Amino acid sequence: MVTKNQIKLVTSLQQKKYRTKHGLFVVEGIKTVDELIDAGYVAYGLFVNTDEMFQKYPEAKIVADDILKQMSGQVNPSGVLGVFYIPKAQKVGNHDWILALDAVRDPGNLGTIIRLCDWFGIEDLVCSEDTVDCFNPKVLQATMGSIARVNITYLDLGEFLHETSLPVYGAFMEGKSIYQMILPKKGILVMGNEANGISMEIEKCIMEKVSIPQFGNQTAESLNVATATAILLNEIRRG
Amino acid sequence: MVTKNQIKLVTSLQQKKYRTKHGLFVVEGIKTVDELIDAGYVAYGLFVNTDEMFQKYPEAKIVADDILKQMSGQVNPSGVLGVFYIPKAQKVGNHDWILALDAVRDPGNLGTIIRLCDWFGIEDLVCSEDTVDCFNPKVLQATMGSIARVNITYLDLGEFLHETSLPVYGAFMEGKSIYQMILPKKGILVMGNEANGISMEIEKCIMEKVSIPQFGNQTAESLNVATATAILLNEIRRG
Repeated sequence: MVTKNQIKLVTSLQQKKYRTKHGLFVVEGIKTVDELIDAGYVAYGLFVNTDEMFQKYPEAKIVADDILKQMSGQVNPSGVLGVFYIPKAQKVGNHDWILALDAVRDPGNLGTIIRLCDWFGIEDLVCSEDTVDCFNPKVLQATMGSIARVNITYLDLGEFLHETSLPVYGAFMEGKSIYQMILPKKGILVMGNEANGISMEIEKCIMEKVSIPQFGNQTAESLNVATATAILLNEIRRG
Repeated sequence: MVTKNQIKLVTSLQQKKYRTKHGLFVVEGIKTVDELIDAGYVAYGLFVNTDEMFQKYPEAKIVADDILKQMSGQVNPSGVLGVFYIPKAQKVGNHDWILALDAVRDPGNLGTIIRLCDWFGIEDLVCSEDTVDCFNPKVLQATMGSIARVNITYLDLGEFLHETSLPVYGAFMEGKSIYQMILPKKGILVMGNEANGISMEIEKCIMEKVSIPQFGNQTAESLNVATATAILLNEIRRG
């Protein structure tokens, strides 16, 4: 049995202010729920709407289809909905490359970038406070479960970059070609906002500006931030 | 003055069957409209809702805000809406790399891939018939104007690959590392569907399977098709 208050709580988690207030977030789908459980995330509650799903998640509550639909942010709920405690971010390491985001706003882009971190073994993703929340349901959907394996920390990015001992690289349209650079074993790569790139405040902390060469008639104005991140992380890892 | 029939026509262009029937597509926003005009696309009609926009596009028709909203697929129409004739695809060249898509379905992915082709100077993009339509409004939005500079051809991909004299590479999870390959000056790179990858029929035409190495604990299941395309085109161009 699910109370009206529980339904209301779950529904409220679509919004960041309620996620922060309750320290909870909501995900849907077997894949992401399983990956979070495997990674040690603590479930506040699991909700399913079929006996089959209940067999898989015996600790879940069975709810009627229309109740699950009410709790879900999706038009077609996927059969299991999990409410998890937001974990404390672990200390940011300094033994490898770190990816830093300066005001990335699009949930799909952040989700794709988290998935890229997982692929390229980037353990730490640090985000400026005005980057979209990584527990936003649209971000979680785009991560395809990778959220469970990347340590994401929201912080004062200017302060963080000011205090770090690692070399700081930033992606700029007018930077030096990444093909011509010899990259160190560890460092920080900063990617900027979709429309405005890296802010002036953060630019001051950049040691080296990098760019991805353009080919052909050079008519394209820019690359999407997620695809640019893909290319730069690949360049860092390929050595 | 815009007639009801014209409004109905423009609205219908949100759907592929009406784009095909009328040989027209619709775009919104100064940037894309200008890039299409610059690239020689022929306008069937332009529609604006302010005097300022009319000064910029004197051949346009001024319509009331609510009419533009009715014609537009967007919640906040951007002030200029253009209806253009769908151009005939030009003959596919064979002097450079060609990108081929096998059943890519997500409009955002196709739009991002078109933008990548523009960035990396890939002139020809060939798509299987079941790839999402490149004149889909969501695709056009994601291309950021790049649609005007890439020759996109829908065709029987199996037949095309069977008949080509170029070497055919395909992206697979279990392919050979792209880092270890010496790539030729020209060829065809095939990218597959979001969920299923390259189909069995197309797989028969692949000469060499390529993959992007994974790092760290190798926990990520896959990369998004647009980010994988970004990395592979970068590898092709960087040489």
